[in-house]
Amino acid sequence: MTQHPRETIGLKIREIRRARGLSQQAFADELEFDRTYIGSLERGERNLTLDTVVALAERLGIDVLELLVPPGR
Amino acid sequence: MTQHPRETIGLKIREIRRARGLSQQAFADELEFDRTYIGSLERGERNLTLDTVVALAERLGIDVLELLVPPGR
Repeated sequence: MTQHPRETIGLKIREIRRARGLSQQAFADELEFDRTYIGSLERGERNLTLDTVVALAERLGIDVLELLVPPGR
Repeated sequence: MTQHPRETIGLKIREIRRARGLSQQAFADELEFDRTYIGSLERGERNLTLDTVVALAERLGIDVLELLVPPGR
């Protein structure tokens, strides 16, 4: 099976954060999230609902499919 | 923005059901779901969690990305 969307989202968030040159703390501050929330997202620990995934993509300024689709797909 | 994943999932489920030539009732019976659940999924009314989307794809025997990615993407 394809990578679990939780894991895809985690990897994508980490990639976006690193591309912006930010620590988890700085990224969390920028997005107005708690640092531990970013950490748990990056580790794929959050069983987000679809609405939350959409809201997260909006907060990041990216298309929701960028969060859901693994690289190279 | 891209179509909301709720809506994409609904359209995909309807498409799969119709491709199998099944009514909502017959499809629900086959999947051991309630007919009203299938109806609400098809209408994009369910704010599913990622784990539920994965379980649904497994039940349908398809890759989770088939549910999440709109046609033509």
